[in-house]
Amino acid sequence: MAIKLGIIGFGGMGSWHADAVKKVDGVEAYAVYDIDPERVAAAREKGLKGYDDLASFLADDEINLVLVATPNDVHCELVCAALNAGKHTICEKPVAMNVAELDQMIATAEKNGKIFSVHQNRRWDKDFVTAKTVYDSGDLGKVYAIQSRLHGTGGIMHGWRGEKAHGGGMLYDWGVHFFDQIYNMVGYDNIVSVKCTTQSIKNEEIDDYFHATIDTKQGIGVVVEIGTFVLREQRVWSILGDQGSMFIDDFAANGEIIKINSMIEHVPVILQTSAGPTRTFAPRPKEVKETKALPECNPDWVEYYANIRDVLEGKTDDLIVKPWQVRKVLRLIECCFESAATGKLVAVE
Amino acid sequence: MAIKLGIIGFGGMGSWHADAVKKVDGVEAYAVYDIDPERVAAAREKGLKGYDDLASFLADDEINLVLVATPNDVHCELVCAALNAGKHTICEKPVAMNVAELDQMIATAEKNGKIFSVHQNRRWDKDFVTAKTVYDSGDLGKVYAIQSRLHGTGGIMHGWRGEKAHGGGMLYDWGVHFFDQIYNMVGYDNIVSVKCTTQSIKNEEIDDYFHATIDTKQGIGVVVEIGTFVLREQRVWSILGDQGSMFIDDFAANGEIIKINSMIEHVPVILQTSAGPTRTFAPRPKEVKETKALPECNPDWVEYYANIRDVLEGKTDDLIVKPWQVRKVLRLIECCFESAATGKLVAVE
Repeated sequence: MAIKLGIIGFGGMGSWHADAVKKVDGVEAYAVYDIDPERVAAAREKGLKGYDDLASFLADDEINLVLVATPNDVHCELVCAALNAGKHTICEKPVAMNVAELDQMIATAEKNGKIFSVHQNRRWDKDFVTAKTVYDSGDLGKVYAIQSRLHGTGGIMHGWRGEKAHGGGMLYDWGVHFFDQIYNMVGYDNIVSVKCTTQSIKNEEIDDYFHATIDTKQGIGVVVEIGTFVLREQRVWSILGDQGSMFIDDFAANGEIIKINSMIEHVPVILQTSAGPTRTFAPRPKEVKETKALPECNPDWVEYYANIRDVLEGKTDDLIVKPWQVRKVLRLIECCFESAATGKLVAVE
Repeated sequence: MAIKLGIIGFGGMGSWHADAVKKVDGVEAYAVYDIDPERVAAAREKGLKGYDDLASFLADDEINLVLVATPNDVHCELVCAALNAGKHTICEKPVAMNVAELDQMIATAEKNGKIFSVHQNRRWDKDFVTAKTVYDSGDLGKVYAIQSRLHGTGGIMHGWRGEKAHGGGMLYDWGVHFFDQIYNMVGYDNIVSVKCTTQSIKNEEIDDYFHATIDTKQGIGVVVEIGTFVLREQRVWSILGDQGSMFIDDFAANGEIIKINSMIEHVPVILQTSAGPTRTFAPRPKEVKETKALPECNPDWVEYYANIRDVLEGKTDDLIVKPWQVRKVLRLIECCFESAATGKLVAVE
């Protein structure tokens, strides 16, 4: 079965998808629907079939998989229309404006017996897959802290991402990825509470900075922090365990695992250090520290489409990005907004 | 008036004080009392008068200022004894096992009309004074986040600092300094709540890691994190404002202020970056970033003693480290323990 992809919304991400699926055997970008005639024209220039009305697009029997890549506020309406037209449907993130909308989308997929998934492509980010590989390996012993941060200097959020009415803001735009990664790492039943602060530094309507402190059943203290106006750009992970620490310093997954090959059980005297007189924070002799390379992981975002293809072709029944997982993430974002508005800790059911 | 210092407890910190006051005109280390005969002998070798019983030490009329540098659990008893013997008294940090003890110490000082202060020497740390100078300058605009972290690889906490019964643990040992710094920076009436997790990674009884998220009335999100087993050693500050960011990378206050001399209002297309397709996190052209040197600050811990001397000599009535400030810090630590035990956010009155 050839999978012919119809794309709704041919902006930055829609056109990215059209190019990306070229790398996936058995999936072909075929048609585009957009409300903007210039974008329809751009799709036609790329050799895609261009539609300027939704009904005709959805009536095209060649299309058996639809991708919705519009602003957030029309996701629900368009995803449900595609599912009701009998198309398997993928939605760009953030999947919906709220959990109620998502529940409607999930119910519509079930009613029509169609696959519904969300493009949580950052499960295939090199930094995340590397971090998760180390976490899963047990090499760090019992993990007690996971921190995931992204700092940029752009400030401004662009287009609909800067508008509340369209479901913009940093929690929805990037938080949705990072929380998805954290759930995928610590387990979907394990987040118990969140304390979150949001800020609107350079954008009036939406959150362009947030800091979320998440507690898990395992006793891991998780921090996710994303800021668009933190003027040292960085993407960092730290995973701290009782047998070692892992640090990742960029999206390319440069970093290291550090372990200690012997504990200093007794430091006889307080040492004079740059930290002042201390034993606890006196620097260790170099030879007790062991630095190990991170495992080599080379995931590719298009693996997302390979999985969709394999599910549609019946080669697997394991849809990697499951709607109920996406629901957990969206609910966590809602808890973050509630925490930020009230200044309280919010229990995550 | 010559200030003659009598030191109770001649361990690592007690002997540090004896050396430190040599740098302060008008203050002289004079006598030592310790329960350990070897330490009394060590004091005598340094030319100090050595006492092996407390009553004789306190009866020595030459001593007009007492420093208590024992384990935490006997601070209250010894400070009160010194005050009741008519001595002005300084206590090492952490001042007491709990706020109730501290209240007793404060009341005893008032009853006897004597000066009582606590050696919160890290108000004169170079990194802190630099950070506070930048914070106070307004150069960063409206500050929305302050983060203060210390990571070491020692793991083990030594001697009484590793024992709960003696008031050990990282919140008491170093948290007491870092919270003192934060209060001093954001104002003593401005902390509203704390969410804290503690861990016992390499020590059974006490916290050797904590992560505290603190909200302030100004809307600043404060993070204080100290870990003894985080295997990249670092002492870092970040202060984030709507006009710039400040980063300090070590106790020596190396670091930078970063500002942006123009905002990028519109990025026409989503860029392909190492972060994937993004506008918000696309790297900025280098020329829009302005890096400024940090102000040069050279505080010295012995300024603490110069202030004590000036107060005792009547040259100022502004005791820098005030008992009520220390009480705020101790109460915040108690709130951290409560938060860690319950998993809840704790309001800080």
